[in-house]
Amino acid sequence: MKYDFDCVIVGSGIAGMTAAIYLKRSNVNVLLLDYDAPGGLLNKISKIENYPGYTSISGPDLVYKIYEQINNLNIEIRYGKVLDIKDHIITTDIEKISANKIILAIGRKARKLENTNNIKNISYCALCDGNLYKDKVVAVVGYSNSALEESIYLSDICKKVIIIGRGSAFNGEESLIDKIKNKKNIDIQLECVIKTLNSENDILTEIVTNKGSFKVDGMFVSIGYEPNTTFLSDITKDNGYIIVDNKMKTNIDYIFACGDIIKKDIYQLTTAVGEATIAAINVKKELRN
Amino acid sequence: MKYDFDCVIVGSGIAGMTAAIYLKRSNVNVLLLDYDAPGGLLNKISKIENYPGYTSISGPDLVYKIYEQINNLNIEIRYGKVLDIKDHIITTDIEKISANKIILAIGRKARKLENTNNIKNISYCALCDGNLYKDKVVAVVGYSNSALEESIYLSDICKKVIIIGRGSAFNGEESLIDKIKNKKNIDIQLECVIKTLNSENDILTEIVTNKGSFKVDGMFVSIGYEPNTTFLSDITKDNGYIIVDNKMKTNIDYIFACGDIIKKDIYQLTTAVGEATIAAINVKKELRN
Repeated sequence: MKYDFDCVIVGSGIAGMTAAIYLKRSNVNVLLLDYDAPGGLLNKISKIENYPGYTSISGPDLVYKIYEQINNLNIEIRYGKVLDIKDHIITTDIEKISANKIILAIGRKARKLENTNNIKNISYCALCDGNLYKDKVVAVVGYSNSALEESIYLSDICKKVIIIGRGSAFNGEESLIDKIKNKKNIDIQLECVIKTLNSENDILTEIVTNKGSFKVDGMFVSIGYEPNTTFLSDITKDNGYIIVDNKMKTNIDYIFACGDIIKKDIYQLTTAVGEATIAAINVKKELRN
Repeated sequence: MKYDFDCVIVGSGIAGMTAAIYLKRSNVNVLLLDYDAPGGLLNKISKIENYPGYTSISGPDLVYKIYEQINNLNIEIRYGKVLDIKDHIITTDIEKISANKIILAIGRKARKLENTNNIKNISYCALCDGNLYKDKVVAVVGYSNSALEESIYLSDICKKVIIIGRGSAFNGEESLIDKIKNKKNIDIQLECVIKTLNSENDILTEIVTNKGSFKVDGMFVSIGYEPNTTFLSDITKDNGYIIVDNKMKTNIDYIFACGDIIKKDIYQLTTAVGEATIAAINVKKELRN
């Protein structure tokens, strides 16, 4: 059978782009497919200081660097939301594409806060929306690394940042915790649980918690991530995360997966590029055979 | 027991440096230990085009970028050749250092050609020695990716490059093979086996093979890599490569390993940084408990 592509990579975050670089350099006829601009979640990270090669770089800047590599290699990119994958055929909202091999690198999304009704001034991305709250008071909901990073970023823009964390201690890198503690305009509220969100005309004005009420101009939510793999009905998953073997292969013979969408212990840029490389090289090996 | 360091990382290539960045940012009292300048084998790579974030960068330049991160975090570096590791004590040719945890990131070395006697103009690093052969004729022994990269690099310096490969076809990325084939001053000799090296005053002058004799001014050898773990007598290995579990832990409770020294399928910069991250985060977890 003749396929449209040797390999289609679904998702153009750092994992998908890395796999594309490896495959294209191996002369594989590869397509990068995404419904959104390249970069994925990386576009929403304000500052990266643990990716080897850059002392400090913003997520969008790192995306741009990798996107330059993609362009330099003339890797084809198409846009479309994947609705279904069956028998080597990817059905998007725009077209059907056949592929000998498929790599799923669809990442995951920020977990949404429930029961926020129609409130408009709740954001999931400090880098995207931080500047709307210059010299204002915002809350950051969460107590892990990403909440810490968002808070540090916002503290340089906003008058005051109130961290509202359910946990009894931060669950993040000590270097970030130290930075947080040295910031004079960050108010840390731990073991703090939201009871009610008071709003006027769909604008949040006050967060009522077990530790008291806080007047705010906006709220940023950073309570973790969740995968979206409901459209992949034939693939073995654990809580929505795709199960792969040590070759990054799923239970379906021609489908591989890598990056934040797979079930694993550690979700970092460095682990994503490693897994993407493993997926790409194994796809190439199978195509050769 | 009080140790000199929470964690000592042996080897300061990209894996060792990545683990150090992660550990130091988690407030772990970490030492980077090496007998040589930081960077390891990466210092000998002329051009990297598959590391996400740089379209094209030399090995030494990438080392320098990561070394900047190390300096920026005030990570302690000491020099010394490790002679023995036993009961949390690392013995070097200079001192004894105790560590709660140890990460072995010692990489591997270029495999040497046998029976080269005292011939002086044999090199294992085009980047290091290429310029000695400006406008001269050199041979590159090998037929895998690294031999291809060395040949391309040398073809821009030397009058002529003769590739002497045992295999019947190149074992490397098609993008490199294409480049090689487009180079007018590269002479490809495959299924070619060296019979004799003729030299005068310890200077190689002619390579005699089953495919004929080649007059050369120098020879570069790129026939793969091998680990050097003979000093690690208690650690479970496979052909010298250290066996680790999916947490990058060796058979010895306090010793982890990552990068090119571990037994695995794929040896890339991207996989090394992924493994280093996994090792570092698991070390941190164990230190916390």
